Amino acid sequence: MSYRTHHCAQLGVSDIGTTVTLSGWVNSRRDHGGVIFIDLRDREGITQVVFQPEAHAEAAAAAHKLRPEFVVKVEGEVVRRMESTANHKIATGQIEVVASRLTVLAESEVPPFPLDDPAVNEDLRLTYRYLDLRRPEMLRNLRLRHRIVKTVRDYFDTQDFVEVETPILSKSTPEGARDFLVPSRLNPGHFYALPQAPQQYKQLLMVAGVERYFQIAKCFRDEDLRADRQPEFTQVDVEASFISREDILGWIEQLIADIFKKSLDVQVPVPFERVPWQQAMDLYGSDKPDRRFGMLLTDLGSIFTGTEFKVFRGALDGGGVIKAINAKKLACITTGQIEELTTMAKQYGAKGLAFIKVENGEWKSPIVKFFTEAEKQALTQAMQIEEGDLILFGADKWETVCEVLGRIRLRVAELLGLLKNSSEWNLLWVVDFPLLQYSPEDSKWNAVHHPFTRPKSEDMPQLEAGEFGRVRAEAYDVVLNGVEIGGGSIRIHESSLQAKMFGILGISEEEQKAQFGHIIEALAFGAPPHGGIALGLDRLVMLLAGATSIRDVMAFPKNNRGQELMNQGPSPVEPKQLKELHIQLRSAQ
Amino acid sequence: MSYRTHHCAQLGVSDIGTTVTLSGWVNSRRDHGGVIFIDLRDREGITQVVFQPEAHAEAAAAAHKLRPEFVVKVEGEVVRRMESTANHKIATGQIEVVASRLTVLAESEVPPFPLDDPAVNEDLRLTYRYLDLRRPEMLRNLRLRHRIVKTVRDYFDTQDFVEVETPILSKSTPEGARDFLVPSRLNPGHFYALPQAPQQYKQLLMVAGVERYFQIAKCFRDEDLRADRQPEFTQVDVEASFISREDILGWIEQLIADIFKKSLDVQVPVPFERVPWQQAMDLYGSDKPDRRFGMLLTDLGSIFTGTEFKVFRGALDGGGVIKAINAKKLACITTGQIEELTTMAKQYGAKGLAFIKVENGEWKSPIVKFFTEAEKQALTQAMQIEEGDLILFGADKWETVCEVLGRIRLRVAELLGLLKNSSEWNLLWVVDFPLLQYSPEDSKWNAVHHPFTRPKSEDMPQLEAGEFGRVRAEAYDVVLNGVEIGGGSIRIHESSLQAKMFGILGISEEEQKAQFGHIIEALAFGAPPHGGIALGLDRLVMLLAGATSIRDVMAFPKNNRGQELMNQGPSPVEPKQLKELHIQLRSAQ
Repeated sequence: MSYRTHHCAQLGVSDIGTTVTLSGWVNSRRDHGGVIFIDLRDREGITQVVFQPEAHAEAAAAAHKLRPEFVVKVEGEVVRRMESTANHKIATGQIEVVASRLTVLAESEVPPFPLDDPAVNEDLRLTYRYLDLRRPEMLRNLRLRHRIVKTVRDYFDTQDFVEVETPILSKSTPEGARDFLVPSRLNPGHFYALPQAPQQYKQLLMVAGVERYFQIAKCFRDEDLRADRQPEFTQVDVEASFISREDILGWIEQLIADIFKKSLDVQVPVPFERVPWQQAMDLYGSDKPDRRFGMLLTDLGSIFTGTEFKVFRGALDGGGVIKAINAKKLACITTGQIEELTTMAKQYGAKGLAFIKVENGEWKSPIVKFFTEAEKQALTQAMQIEEGDLILFGADKWETVCEVLGRIRLRVAELLGLLKNSSEWNLLWVVDFPLLQYSPEDSKWNAVHHPFTRPKSEDMPQLEAGEFGRVRAEAYDVVLNGVEIGGGSIRIHESSLQAKMFGILGISEEEQKAQFGHIIEALAFGAPPHGGIALGLDRLVMLLAGATSIRDVMAFPKNNRGQELMNQGPSPVEPKQLKELHIQLRSAQ
Repeated sequence: MSYRTHHCAQLGVSDIGTTVTLSGWVNSRRDHGGVIFIDLRDREGITQVVFQPEAHAEAAAAAHKLRPEFVVKVEGEVVRRMESTANHKIATGQIEVVASRLTVLAESEVPPFPLDDPAVNEDLRLTYRYLDLRRPEMLRNLRLRHRIVKTVRDYFDTQDFVEVETPILSKSTPEGARDFLVPSRLNPGHFYALPQAPQQYKQLLMVAGVERYFQIAKCFRDEDLRADRQPEFTQVDVEASFISREDILGWIEQLIADIFKKSLDVQVPVPFERVPWQQAMDLYGSDKPDRRFGMLLTDLGSIFTGTEFKVFRGALDGGGVIKAINAKKLACITTGQIEELTTMAKQYGAKGLAFIKVENGEWKSPIVKFFTEAEKQALTQAMQIEEGDLILFGADKWETVCEVLGRIRLRVAELLGLLKNSSEWNLLWVVDFPLLQYSPEDSKWNAVHHPFTRPKSEDMPQLEAGEFGRVRAEAYDVVLNGVEIGGGSIRIHESSLQAKMFGILGISEEEQKAQFGHIIEALAFGAPPHGGIALGLDRLVMLLAGATSIRDVMAFPKNNRGQELMNQGPSPVEPKQLKELHIQLRSAQ
């Protein structure tokens, strides 16, 4: 028995007169005086089927019992629709199938929510995920994800990368977040950890001589789930040997260009601009700048060298900076909105948020009275101030000012609706991140990326001289529309440099051995120069799909309590299993 | 800085005279009176590099310090080797590179074992897996695996299948083996389970209308590890809607043909023969017959209808069978070997193992005295008995005789070395497995495959009549050289038939709800006819690689205590983590 000769998006006027078989779901059913119309839906589209009692009594009678979401097989003839009923919006809109035979393959109860109602509560959708996924946009997202993933694999295959599976039942590592732990029954008191990333494995594959590795890898983090985090997520994981930074950047650029071409038919220009981290912070107040709009952070230090305004004076005297952004046409901002921005500024470390509204040719501001005429004039020029503008200031340590104005800049763009109808895809690299950051709490230097990240060779003198704050790393992030979609680095491959780095980080030999033993050992047996990158697949697919949550591009996501509502997992276990778990735990003491 | 202009398998006589840069590992080093030769190895191959003190003093001096597994970059000129030193076995054997410059990229300690010694203890290899993987055959296995996996994805993509990722943090299901459990910190007392297979998810994707799904899926089983099992393994998981068994079989045949073509350049004929389970058991005593050799099980019931030999008599009178195999040229079997076979027969349920050795024209056997002349003559003809043969008998219930002689047949083939030099790839389908099997211990019928497997429509009358032992399933296995490499079935998609099946299996409504709640519910909302299959990827790659263990086709396998020796996982956890685990467990009580 064949279920179909065509799918439901396939038939057109050229098929008129042919006898076809279609199978799918009843999307809707209408009764026009005894003549039954159904929209038959399969994963490709919709075809209208008509049941005429005079022509095919048996099929028409059966069609009276159809309800939405019944699964049916229909045989019939393709005919042209009357022009008055043609639907020119869909591919199959000029034809319909006159059914001569109907087979109900499965009945359906009334779905618990209308499938096409976008307002349905997400918990209910997730509980009946198998119905939620019937929505064409969800199916489209899954297929887009498939296309992207296929493009990734095709690309790396052409570049002679080898996809290697690394273990899921892995070992706990000291990096970042909390691990999910899996008790080992065969090794009581011992635990596997689900990998947060295959970082160590991929470096070991380089030591093994694989030279070019990639994997679309499942990763796990036991975090308190913020909005739009998932306990398991997927990353495109890449590592290569005998290469430089430019090799990695070039591969990823071409990969992303391929993805855009094959999934959206969009041509993105390569190479992407490389923006040093210092400059990204300076101009955008962000290490993942959204450059689809301007509103750059402008340094005003030279204008206010002689300022008497004590906030500005204090910042400069303390080695800090004065910067501002010009929110064009936002002089109309409400007091409530200014308060919101001020709260935001304080949240990110500022003491307040100075501003100037330019309304009716006048600068409305509590701080202008401290400015000289010369300062005002220079400011007008530097910030290109015009009627209707809102100038927002930061004066503090460089890091604080950048961070605060960077956040304000994004919020202002939202308030102004700058990106509302943007169809731009803005891609760039942020490069030359700092290698080390001093932690006042720990009274020590920590790695910004991870302890295997390579210092830039130009900055080795600073490293030798102990000027750790001035050492940049061979680290890079790729940013799409202000979202970091991936990051990586060239690694340290020499035992001696690695030992030096551990020394700087204040990690004792004992700790090194316990935490990184096998990888340190591996470096002693001839590790090639190597580096890599990891891209966040879920987020990338989300952006390309135009979705607003990564849950919309995963088949079976969990909610923000880590639960899969459809199958009510995680779940309690049998008493026998629980007893075994207790025994396993007890052995650990 | 560029690390290479060519890889180490690339240079040939056509490159003579060019200046090249190579990077890789020192595979070996020889000193011929001050002239140093190294074999430089990268993942593609080996090139000989020569350091001549007269020509390039500095490089030659540096080369004296090289030891095996050092990582180096070499610049030099390609020259023709003297004919007397040419190596015609490797691609680069007619040239060598005269090094003008040597850079040591990384030094290496002396490896803990000679990389090319096949006799090294496996535990040691696994401890230093990153060195073990440097062996060309291991790297070849990883690349073969990549090629196979790529072929799988390319194939299903061309057939419009969608690869969908299903969760790893999943829910415990009652199927088969023991689950690995993961305590959920956010849901104390509740546990995720790592999936044994994405069986339920893939069926739910069919209910969701994905229509054609595949995934290369990680699966997990917490088993006491027998030889060559791994706690995590990989399967090619497939499900499709609106299809019949022949669609699935056709896709998989073409896929396997593609795999053989693209990975081994071997053409395997399609379609594969479909052998009903009943016939496979009858002729080969196995549901995964190795048909690279004959030695079929022959039914002797009609010959011995009147037998007085009480073992045969008893078998026939009890509704059983008499069968035999002819182990050609094995009359020379030793008493010890006969004892081994007898032990094996008993292990699989036989009371003993009757046999006839044909030596010097004589039938040497304790049982021949019970045979009539007519029986002997008929036996000779049926078994085509000749000088040197060994006839081995089974007389018992059909199931027992098939199983026992099937096992003996394989062991005999080993003793005879029948497959020693075989390069045959024998592929077949075993179809029409029984749907149900009666369990005397449980006093009930159990599903042979799983409770969602569809009965054959021809056998619905037997199902209705309660003749459960006579109902066959729409289930199928694909077998390569006597190894089951995959299996699947067409599923039940109607709520009513599923309810009937649960009734037959004696699963109460309460149990149904607890164990299969969401999938039963899903069937009520319009499930399309669907079916699928899963292939064991590790085993398939192992067979194609000619490896003898799946550990040889996995990058980082565990040993048979579930441990990864390289990183000493699983491992103890921090006291803080342990305390949290205790809290999580306590909540479950």
